[in-house]
Amino acid sequence: MAQLSESQLLERIFPRLIIPVPAGGPAGTSLLLGPGDDAAIVAAPDGRTVLSIDTQVADQDFRLQWNNGYRTSGYDVGWKAAAQNLSDINAMGARATSLVVSLTMPPETLVSWVEDFADGLMAGIRELGAAGCTVAGGDLGRGRELAVSVAILGTLDGSEPVLRSGARPGDTVALAGTVGRAAAGLALLESDIRVGDLNAGQRALMDTQCRPQPPLAAGPLAREAGASALMDISDGLVRDGNRMAAASHAILNLDAAALKELVVPLLPASELLGADPMSWVLGGGEDHGLLATFPPGLQLPPGFTAIGSVEAPAPTESTGVKIAGRPADAVGWDHFAD
Amino acid sequence: MAQLSESQLLERIFPRLIIPVPAGGPAGTSLLLGPGDDAAIVAAPDGRTVLSIDTQVADQDFRLQWNNGYRTSGYDVGWKAAAQNLSDINAMGARATSLVVSLTMPPETLVSWVEDFADGLMAGIRELGAAGCTVAGGDLGRGRELAVSVAILGTLDGSEPVLRSGARPGDTVALAGTVGRAAAGLALLESDIRVGDLNAGQRALMDTQCRPQPPLAAGPLAREAGASALMDISDGLVRDGNRMAAASHAILNLDAAALKELVVPLLPASELLGADPMSWVLGGGEDHGLLATFPPGLQLPPGFTAIGSVEAPAPTESTGVKIAGRPADAVGWDHFAD
Repeated sequence: MAQLSESQLLERIFPRLIIPVPAGGPAGTSLLLGPGDDAAIVAAPDGRTVLSIDTQVADQDFRLQWNNGYRTSGYDVGWKAAAQNLSDINAMGARATSLVVSLTMPPETLVSWVEDFADGLMAGIRELGAAGCTVAGGDLGRGRELAVSVAILGTLDGSEPVLRSGARPGDTVALAGTVGRAAAGLALLESDIRVGDLNAGQRALMDTQCRPQPPLAAGPLAREAGASALMDISDGLVRDGNRMAAASHAILNLDAAALKELVVPLLPASELLGADPMSWVLGGGEDHGLLATFPPGLQLPPGFTAIGSVEAPAPTESTGVKIAGRPADAVGWDHFAD
Repeated sequence: MAQLSESQLLERIFPRLIIPVPAGGPAGTSLLLGPGDDAAIVAAPDGRTVLSIDTQVADQDFRLQWNNGYRTSGYDVGWKAAAQNLSDINAMGARATSLVVSLTMPPETLVSWVEDFADGLMAGIRELGAAGCTVAGGDLGRGRELAVSVAILGTLDGSEPVLRSGARPGDTVALAGTVGRAAAGLALLESDIRVGDLNAGQRALMDTQCRPQPPLAAGPLAREAGASALMDISDGLVRDGNRMAAASHAILNLDAAALKELVVPLLPASELLGADPMSWVLGGGEDHGLLATFPPGLQLPPGFTAIGSVEAPAPTESTGVKIAGRPADAVGWDHFAD
């Protein structure tokens, strides 16, 4: 990469980032002016733009070389950057229209790595179901460590956003997508069991850490179904649930039996490592599942599973997540698992 | 900073980033939903959003500790992040509405540095004249090196953007803002002459490197006046002029007498350092002046100075910048200065 100028490198990358206009897509693409000028121009058909930014740094948010021998590919990093940012738009009940990417790389980075990054970014956008999202531009620079910042835009298509502050007593707490898989995958990546010795189920958990699969259709579906609150689980069900509970001045009381169901897909890793899978369900982020609440009597949209109910805090009680009526922070995950 | 959680740090910073709605400002603020949810929502009144992203990395784009003894403050880094990104919106003939910022910091970063960064970011927005631009959200993370990514949104208020591809033979080439000052300042920062020994004129050049002053009113003014092409000079007059020339399939023939005028403000540094000030005028970026072309017969708007004219390339001739009729790349800056 040190042998190419920024413009030469951009010439290698831009052709990989151009999305064909999806035939019959929801609204075609939203890009009115693409890369090459001082800024891009993106359609905002309802007069509003949903906006988020997120950064991944090597050896903080992922390792280029994991303990179990797996090497993070450019494709992985590109996919994960797409997934994380698309999930933030999804979590507003919105649909992504466009993103810009800033890639900071050490000079020894191979050009093929950067091409692989571009391919992974595009594959993430396409395969996760965000085909209306185009890459509007970017920025390439050098640094001592690899870092990727993505800023993403979305549209609510004329609807109101679903905030994390709308949960009301009596609402159903529901989940779309997965929880704990990326955390189980992280434990495998950091273990001494070589990647080549993993079976398909274990490998699939590892893949969720490297290339998360946020349920991008679920955000707009939840909004259309009348969800009262919605957020992305990026730091774990309890931590993010505590945030929703605080914003909504409520308690999210999760159902123990429902949580135990969520453990099942993690057993291939927990049994191998002798770990507690409930700690991954409750504490693991990065699957980018969606946490939602729905008013009573509403039918949950496809992809959502009920995992609890919203309650009003007693006068002296704090907001937060409870599990079977007991504060999750006080219970402790290990204890609860017994 | 390592002693605070991300949310504790955000609590220290967000109060510094909230802009009061400007009394009688052009359109108040555009922020419909601010920080605290999965994404922000920004008004896009004409159904389009102008979008750009830019990253600064310590020891690549600036030094925390310069050779002449000057220490880059958090305020400087915040100001420069604002200035660079506001300039990209300006260079489309647009007006900034909102930005999001992602700050990556080593764990030893002082909280006071981060607060100073927030103050500099806000001061840059306000003092450069972009009071309608609000901070919509952000992301804080750790890394081995300090890095700042800003993504910025703007509005064209219903007008068409001014691209870099619109220069036509016969147009006047014009400049708003300054060129070469930041490069002169960089030379002072890298010199062995201690910062304390600089006079006010030299110090002002250094300040342009640390806290650039892009002419933010000039972009929309140029658009309203009928500019045919517009771009931000971030990599130098010749490099960026070559880009405008290539996009417009034209030659930008700069006037030697006009260029010599641009040298005058740089003499306090060039005389001290024994340097060639014309190399700063032609090669220096980071002042974020605006390069524009205007159709013949138009009066230049306030703040613009004519520096040349647009010509059609001869059939076998390349596009690019010329100086007094000779290709700038071939002339060489040192030679031209004689």
